[in-house]
Amino acid sequence: MAGSTFGTNFTITTFGESHGKAVGVVLDGCPPMIELSVEDVQKELDRRRPGQSKVSTPRDESDTVEIYSGIFEGKTTGTPIMMMVFNKNQMSRDYNAVKDLFRPGHADFTYYSKYGVRDHRGGGRSSARETIGRVCAGAVAKKILSRSGVTIQAYVIQVGPHKAEKRDLGIVEENIIRTCDLDAAKKMEEYIVEAKEAGDSVGAIVEVIVKGVPVGVGEPVFDRLNALISHAIMSIPAVKGIEFGKGFEAALMRGSEHNDEMIKYGFLSNNAGGTLGGMASGQDIIFRFVVKPASSITVPRKGIDLYGNEKTVITEGRHDPCVAPRVVPVAEAMTGVVLVDLIMSDKAIANYFEKK
Amino acid sequence: MAGSTFGTNFTITTFGESHGKAVGVVLDGCPPMIELSVEDVQKELDRRRPGQSKVSTPRDESDTVEIYSGIFEGKTTGTPIMMMVFNKNQMSRDYNAVKDLFRPGHADFTYYSKYGVRDHRGGGRSSARETIGRVCAGAVAKKILSRSGVTIQAYVIQVGPHKAEKRDLGIVEENIIRTCDLDAAKKMEEYIVEAKEAGDSVGAIVEVIVKGVPVGVGEPVFDRLNALISHAIMSIPAVKGIEFGKGFEAALMRGSEHNDEMIKYGFLSNNAGGTLGGMASGQDIIFRFVVKPASSITVPRKGIDLYGNEKTVITEGRHDPCVAPRVVPVAEAMTGVVLVDLIMSDKAIANYFEKK
Amino acid sequence: MAGSTFGTNFTITTFGESHGKAVGVVLDGCPPMIELSVEDVQKELDRRRPGQSKVSTPRDESDTVEIYSGIFEGKTTGTPIMMMVFNKNQMSRDYNAVKDLFRPGHADFTYYSKYGVRDHRGGGRSSARETIGRVCAGAVAKKILSRSGVTIQAYVIQVGPHKAEKRDLGIVEENIIRTCDLDAAKKMEEYIVEAKEAGDSVGAIVEVIVKGVPVGVGEPVFDRLNALISHAIMSIPAVKGIEFGKGFEAALMRGSEHNDEMIKYGFLSNNAGGTLGGMASGQDIIFRFVVKPASSITVPRKGIDLYGNEKTVITEGRHDPCVAPRVVPVAEAMTGVVLVDLIMSDKAIANYFEKK
Amino acid sequence: MAGSTFGTNFTITTFGESHGKAVGVVLDGCPPMIELSVEDVQKELDRRRPGQSKVSTPRDESDTVEIYSGIFEGKTTGTPIMMMVFNKNQMSRDYNAVKDLFRPGHADFTYYSKYGVRDHRGGGRSSARETIGRVCAGAVAKKILSRSGVTIQAYVIQVGPHKAEKRDLGIVEENIIRTCDLDAAKKMEEYIVEAKEAGDSVGAIVEVIVKGVPVGVGEPVFDRLNALISHAIMSIPAVKGIEFGKGFEAALMRGSEHNDEMIKYGFLSNNAGGTLGGMASGQDIIFRFVVKPASSITVPRKGIDLYGNEKTVITEGRHDPCVAPRVVPVAEAMTGVVLVDLIMSDKAIANYFEKK
Repeated sequence: MAGSTFGTNFTITTFGESHGKAVGVVLDGCPPMIELSVEDVQKELDRRRPGQSKVSTPRDESDTVEIYSGIFEGKTTGTPIMMMVFNKNQMSRDYNAVKDLFRPGHADFTYYSKYGVRDHRGGGRSSARETIGRVCAGAVAKKILSRSGVTIQAYVIQVGPHKAEKRDLGIVEENIIRTCDLDAAKKMEEYIVEAKEAGDSVGAIVEVIVKGVPVGVGEPVFDRLNALISHAIMSIPAVKGIEFGKGFEAALMRGSEHNDEMIKYGFLSNNAGGTLGGMASGQDIIFRFVVKPASSITVPRKGIDLYGNEKTVITEGRHDPCVAPRVVPVAEAMTGVVLVDLIMSDKAIANYFEKK
Repeated sequence: MAGSTFGTNFTITTFGESHGKAVGVVLDGCPPMIELSVEDVQKELDRRRPGQSKVSTPRDESDTVEIYSGIFEGKTTGTPIMMMVFNKNQMSRDYNAVKDLFRPGHADFTYYSKYGVRDHRGGGRSSARETIGRVCAGAVAKKILSRSGVTIQAYVIQVGPHKAEKRDLGIVEENIIRTCDLDAAKKMEEYIVEAKEAGDSVGAIVEVIVKGVPVGVGEPVFDRLNALISHAIMSIPAVKGIEFGKGFEAALMRGSEHNDEMIKYGFLSNNAGGTLGGMASGQDIIFRFVVKPASSITVPRKGIDLYGNEKTVITEGRHDPCVAPRVVPVAEAMTGVVLVDLIMSDKAIANYFEKK
Repeated sequence: MAGSTFGTNFTITTFGESHGKAVGVVLDGCPPMIELSVEDVQKELDRRRPGQSKVSTPRDESDTVEIYSGIFEGKTTGTPIMMMVFNKNQMSRDYNAVKDLFRPGHADFTYYSKYGVRDHRGGGRSSARETIGRVCAGAVAKKILSRSGVTIQAYVIQVGPHKAEKRDLGIVEENIIRTCDLDAAKKMEEYIVEAKEAGDSVGAIVEVIVKGVPVGVGEPVFDRLNALISHAIMSIPAVKGIEFGKGFEAALMRGSEHNDEMIKYGFLSNNAGGTLGGMASGQDIIFRFVVKPASSITVPRKGIDLYGNEKTVITEGRHDPCVAPRVVPVAEAMTGVVLVDLIMSDKAIANYFEKK
Repeated sequence: MAGSTFGTNFTITTFGESHGKAVGVVLDGCPPMIELSVEDVQKELDRRRPGQSKVSTPRDESDTVEIYSGIFEGKTTGTPIMMMVFNKNQMSRDYNAVKDLFRPGHADFTYYSKYGVRDHRGGGRSSARETIGRVCAGAVAKKILSRSGVTIQAYVIQVGPHKAEKRDLGIVEENIIRTCDLDAAKKMEEYIVEAKEAGDSVGAIVEVIVKGVPVGVGEPVFDRLNALISHAIMSIPAVKGIEFGKGFEAALMRGSEHNDEMIKYGFLSNNAGGTLGGMASGQDIIFRFVVKPASSITVPRKGIDLYGNEKTVITEGRHDPCVAPRVVPVAEAMTGVVLVDLIMSDKAIANYFEKK
């Protein structure tokens, strides 16, 4: 199956490997006449790029995007938008040590098993560099959504045992963790740096809030808003779980607590996380997802080589001790793509035939 | 968007509302020459049907399935299989009291907002009766998978605060909770009955284990095995979160703990839950999902009517105090559909072109 | 691949075989609040049904449709509409003579080769009865289109050597050939009856005209209006070719003749058949397709049996000597489905984001 | 709707406009371990490139392809293959004269009507340059098919009134018309040159023959082999009709003539063109399509400008007087893409589940 396209009416098709020539995306189905500059896209990419801070990989990739099609005189034309970033700072020699090894927790084992190809130069298609194309497309999605007053913001709420107690969304882009609680930020940073110095990595939880989604967005029964967002977010490397509203806590609740009461002007709570029956309820969409600790670490681990021999694996190279801060823009991007796709689909029904 | 079809090569299209004539499914892309009887399907439906026990709704719907196409002389023909159950025990009068009301936590508000239709007779398309079609299709999927030694089992692991400590999978179908720990079963049952007597409902967590999936199943980058399963499971009514392997606990772990070490004959742990890079690793696929407490309760709650007036809402009728035991076969069904779809797609590549 | 679903946002999924229990369709993505009665659908089915006249099969199947879902109080609800017709007048004994034979020109050879199943009772899924589901869905599509002033009409323009010289569209439903020229109708009828008496069948050409399609409908580059219509029409049994506007005659023309000149209020000709660059130009959409003579005839022909032995094949039974009159509503249906799908998709872009 | 992706399991997504930076394609779902070099692709592109001969446009675009992803050490990896050609010889000044004009028979009217964008520099997305991406993907498809012994060949059989009487397929690439009859080639060439000197263009018919397709390829009922090929071929710019086997001539035939008789070792004729019931019959697949005379001519024609004023339109620039010779590789490419997609899908069913 061709698994590199996502979406129905507004689609993204990503391409490229970590150590190939380039990575990018074709965005199709974009409405015409949307103002779009390279800067709009680059701004989002800069939030994702490596080398931003001491808690991300020291690889310094500038990741400069170029737009190859779909734009004329600063506006979208309605035709496919191809955006691409050349790979530059690929130190393949970093990978010589693991050339014949399968790294524990890494996709190189499954890629080799499925495709029979061993690209020893790096993560190949499983690399987080693939998400560059997603962020480019997401920049366009966010631009489109902003015209209708829809905003998406992701932020880190937990790193190891350290949780954000506050939701101060104004400071997210001002701290290197991209968390919403400055007190927690300090502890999270120390926790990550400590793991990094030990050659290890840490897990984290990211929350996403979407404001302004009109009531009814989402397509029963399979393309529910929450189901499509789950598909999109779970397709991001390292994500291992997702929950909406109260999420897993709902197991401990009774209906009389969990169900959000309604009054004339809205809801009295948002335990559902903004969806009812798979459609937006008009409340904020709120969900959380967990990212596992990255697999590329220098702590020695038991692994095997291509021939089945047991080996001790140490992954040198320049990897993220915590991927969460850089996953933030990727999560926003994927959420944006889902929303534009669903909103366009929904209005197809509502506007044309009904309001005519 | 047409949201009632799921899958790419092996697709299910469900139809029908709770108080319409019938509910059912068209399963397309099924391989030919698979032995399939009405009993194979009915057996799974019986696990889903109402009125099974004191912890499910007292509505006694026999839910007898009939197969209308795609079978000849007891075998599939490769053409679409239509399976349908007539709705019988629809006590619409139960709904008169909520005829003009939006029930808190219920999809009637979003359905009305999106479609402008008020089917006061019941849940309509948002009703759990829609999942009958899924279970029928899942019965076929499980039959196909069993030929290749793939098995899927779901079971309840938590109801309210009561957790299953054991994983005794042999007893799951022998207790009305469908849990894997007989000691816990008793407490869970008491907890549900107590809530039921109070006119309330409770949440729960279900775990699913899949054995025998070949390495490599899953299509990077968007149609990862875990992403498609998440899409499928999150599309089941009342599901609010899903996690694979260690799931959200991964936030507390380090890479050196979470990454599953490999030795000559396999893995030393399964923190990943059976996928690496979105493809099956050859280990068991393990995931969990949470179901919220049902919205139809008799505890009075604040709601509004169609005209925006504030009302006290009490949902009489015969509803499940805990949907988890009846969600078990639905989760197995959706997991089966995803797996057959992905395996067929995968082998398309592997077999024909490579091994020829 | 699951080939029984057609469309993207407005989809039809047909099911059923000629000698199974029933044939039908699930129509998904239908806008809500469209008035729809069983009569709206039955009316179209009656135009397709067997036994209408001496130029169609004498099988007298009433083909009574029932709607099982998606309608409430006489209106669509936006959820899947399932429509089904039970098979009644199946004289399987007619097929005993060809039980083990592959009929020349018939799909039983390829079905058996692909699926390994021999349903000796009749055409199975390749039977024209499969088109019943299409006509049901098309009835809904035409209803939707009529709200926007879009009309679709098909009619026979050639049977054997006899061509319609006129385009008198008002008389199409008043003659059993469904042609647009009463003089030609007589000759066509004689020609068909003569072939029928000889146990033979004849080919024909059908033209379709669509009025009122807004400029711009069609999605470059692959989902062009003409490409999707071609896909849809060529999927009808017995259709062997399609052409738009001047069609194959364009090979003989120069650009200065073929290109349609434009003036202030429109075009001076319609050689293109109503599309430019794959999008509707605002002119009438005009295309023609050819149906081959049916394969089920009593003229003895060389064929083989399941075991490869050469046999003389005579197909008794009650078959259409010319399928064209009964293909007319099927072609209208498929054209309608394509148009609703494309218009809904198109307006998704245009309305919501641009006009807001 | 996102219309720039074609295919289900083996997909192509094209991007780029005639006067943008580049045109290209992302090919997804390609099996791994297929040897593929830039030369394999370039060879096909050279057959499509402008400036080949006196019957094609004098624009001399070298159209050099580069592969950006999906290849490692000379073999496909199973991940998306991005191939791109930079636009070089864009003389936008040629278009100044038609800057505000809609050219009769040209897509600039519908593009402007739909998207509201006027890219006066040239054909934009409707330009035949878009087919560069298709030819690149087709080169890969043909490589894959050749491993299984499937070959595709297209050739011109009619230009204006001049028809190829012979089918000498060995000489097709040796004459500038790409016809299969050297005697006809001379007359066709003269006919095209004459039109070219008059500032005019001519139409033509192309035939395609596919050998070696296994019995059963094609997915009933909508994704029939002939229906998908029709979709693919009708999506090529300037194509106005398609027919299989005897095509429109079938209207004149009786069933006893048209139906292909079968004997022990095959068929006695191929009037059907190689499909029965929408699936390959094992015979050669044969179809023909017509290309209209190109719209860009210097013969003065009546047209309108952006504001509705009537104007005389003369399209200077360097255009093809007959597009057929350059459409030949595009038709082969699209046919190849359809076949790989269907074969991969088909074997999904046949191999894995049945032969295991």
